[in-house]
Amino acid sequence: MSTVTPAAAPETDPRVKAVFDDIRATRKSDFVNNMWRYLAFDPPLLETTWAEVKAVMATPSNLDPLVKEMLYIAVSATNGCSYCVHSHTAAARAKGMTDAQHAELLHIIALAAKTNQLATALQVPVDAVFDADRGKAE
Amino acid sequence: MSTVTPAAAPETDPRVKAVFDDIRATRKSDFVNNMWRYLAFDPPLLETTWAEVKAVMATPSNLDPLVKEMLYIAVSATNGCSYCVHSHTAAARAKGMTDAQHAELLHIIALAAKTNQLATALQVPVDAVFDADRGKAE
Amino acid sequence: MSTVTPAAAPETDPRVKAVFDDIRATRKSDFVNNMWRYLAFDPPLLETTWAEVKAVMATPSNLDPLVKEMLYIAVSATNGCSYCVHSHTAAARAKGMTDAQHAELLHIIALAAKTNQLATALQVPVDAVFDADRGKAE
Amino acid sequence: MSTVTPAAAPETDPRVKAVFDDIRATRKSDFVNNMWRYLAFDPPLLETTWAEVKAVMATPSNLDPLVKEMLYIAVSATNGCSYCVHSHTAAARAKGMTDAQHAELLHIIALAAKTNQLATALQVPVDAVFDADRGKAE
Amino acid sequence: MSTVTPAAAPETDPRVKAVFDDIRATRKSDFVNNMWRYLAFDPPLLETTWAEVKAVMATPSNLDPLVKEMLYIAVSATNGCSYCVHSHTAAARAKGMTDAQHAELLHIIALAAKTNQLATALQVPVDAVFDADRGKAE
Amino acid sequence: MSTVTPAAAPETDPRVKAVFDDIRATRKSDFVNNMWRYLAFDPPLLETTWAEVKAVMATPSNLDPLVKEMLYIAVSATNGCSYCVHSHTAAARAKGMTDAQHAELLHIIALAAKTNQLATALQVPVDAVFDADRGKAE
Repeated sequence: MSTVTPAAAPETDPRVKAVFDDIRATRKSDFVNNMWRYLAFDPPLLETTWAEVKAVMATPSNLDPLVKEMLYIAVSATNGCSYCVHSHTAAARAKGMTDAQHAELLHIIALAAKTNQLATALQVPVDAVFDADRGKAE
Repeated sequence: MSTVTPAAAPETDPRVKAVFDDIRATRKSDFVNNMWRYLAFDPPLLETTWAEVKAVMATPSNLDPLVKEMLYIAVSATNGCSYCVHSHTAAARAKGMTDAQHAELLHIIALAAKTNQLATALQVPVDAVFDADRGKAE
Repeated sequence: MSTVTPAAAPETDPRVKAVFDDIRATRKSDFVNNMWRYLAFDPPLLETTWAEVKAVMATPSNLDPLVKEMLYIAVSATNGCSYCVHSHTAAARAKGMTDAQHAELLHIIALAAKTNQLATALQVPVDAVFDADRGKAE
Repeated sequence: MSTVTPAAAPETDPRVKAVFDDIRATRKSDFVNNMWRYLAFDPPLLETTWAEVKAVMATPSNLDPLVKEMLYIAVSATNGCSYCVHSHTAAARAKGMTDAQHAELLHIIALAAKTNQLATALQVPVDAVFDADRGKAE
Repeated sequence: MSTVTPAAAPETDPRVKAVFDDIRATRKSDFVNNMWRYLAFDPPLLETTWAEVKAVMATPSNLDPLVKEMLYIAVSATNGCSYCVHSHTAAARAKGMTDAQHAELLHIIALAAKTNQLATALQVPVDAVFDADRGKAE
Repeated sequence: MSTVTPAAAPETDPRVKAVFDDIRATRKSDFVNNMWRYLAFDPPLLETTWAEVKAVMATPSNLDPLVKEMLYIAVSATNGCSYCVHSHTAAARAKGMTDAQHAELLHIIALAAKTNQLATALQVPVDAVFDADRGKAE
């Protein structure tokens, strides 16, 4: 079930085809997952979303590709996005995540959720030393 | 402001003192941040929370200490926990996070939140290939 | 799957029948969607929930009916409520939402989620000029 | 800081005065907390919100008044509502919540957040026996 | 669908068997629900999670067992954890929750979500009298 | 307090100056709010974030500018982003939002949060007629 109707042959639209081709080339795989197939209902949204995902997630940077996928899983689980948890766990595995790393990731994000609740329920005041914003006039 | 009243001299309770001493020894620092000072209103909760944080975050493991802090920031920002965002950003900096890594971390968690919304608003069906749970009888 | 067992013939309860009749009359349709069929396990909760939905969503007001549905989608997607995303997207379509408006709605709520994460992770201080609460003694 | 400007003398509006009087009578206290003072910028919203809060929270029912406040704290902390965490913790204390009960409440809601994350990150399939919705034709 | 592959015969691992045996003994039931079967992909995570759930939820304490389950439902629904809503609603029913209590629970958590939104959208300032943290020097 | 240290004179960096100039030109105002001043700690993140906000929020489109701000408020309140609630409420007012529209907006997003909780706690199954994704082979 979805809230949009994906086209039967989305790549007859040249804008969609260009994005799908770039996804396949970037990932060196023929598989285009449903996220992109459903976003294709609006080619401009497909284009800008893929451009940003490619720039952030598929371009060499200061962070390790596997670390990036783990961060994506952490946010996606916290937001309760079932699709995203599935797709980024699969991506993390494809980038070498072991079962032990997966278990550790789960423990960290679960512990963070737990201490987030404690800090919020206690309304703990922020320690002054944590402020990076010294010289600010307020 | 907080929802509990921290003791004026929490370390007169030997259970609290034992935890605070362990925090100082583990972190090689005299500073005990407010999270622990407010949790000290209930020594058993303080003990079990610190024990878990120490085991997960301050014990050598399969993941890099800085990566763990970044994962903590990702969850804390997604949950909107102001205290936790502050304390774990400070911790990540203390473990060497550069401004460039910080900016990249922010872009990843912001992009994840964005595509989480898209996937949820579209109700994209999960691709069958993402299922790790093959042999399951359902 | 649900956490409650809907009655096989809910309208044998006159309180349920009265609400279902009002839903059909208000919407000029014979269809009563599952939300109301499951809420019918508790007639008082069904009555107060429908009364509020009718007053806010189905009564002429300062906001356009389609805008109201879009706001409902925005909250529902952010809360990760799959049922509500489906039902209110269908309602928005029935009120004339085009594919282009749908795509734009998705882009706005996804962008908002993204900048929400940035503001929270940065802990940006609120500009004084945004305060509507001038004369307040605090 | 707030997003609305509360009136300097809100009770000159008879609709606001009627609600404030009812709050004072219901709670047997002269104190009207800020939630109602700010909601007073729109008397109809003030009236309907108070009417529902009074019916659900201040009317004898199947659940103990202290339990109701604890449930409110659980939701408010999970939603990260700072104001609500403060006001309902104060209300729970006024209804007799001890420090030990408060600590236990915090541990339960923190543990729930933790196992929520685990279940979501693992995407655990729901056991068939949990389905209350047997006879349903789907 | 899940993000991990549960073992076909998890109890051949003695650590898993010990936890499952303890679950069965604690609950006086042969049934081990999926949460534990999937967590068993990592025995240490299974052990620590069960130990905490048992200590908090299955040990006599200051709060009634049914109240604890209701608090768990409140957090789980707010976090949108479908699995947890199902499992803890089933547990609450097994501990005697009536339909009337269930309906009241739903109304409280729904009302809390509603007033959380109002307080956050209004950015209501916290009343000074709610502060439990008097003597604090800040 | 913030997690980053804004530069004392951010516009000495020509990339920052170019963005701030564009913000001032686009909004026809000399005021640059804190969101952009803090994002300026990383000019590339500032540039891409502003470019997207400008394209989505400050470019004529299928949706009314005030409606867009209201959608932004709805998401921001649901995510508990204090800064964003303040900044977008101020923006909505600048675009003509009346007190009556503001009150109605608040009622809609609060009601949506309420029924989201009900649908999630009940785990209401999605009606088949809501599925826009007919021809899909699954």
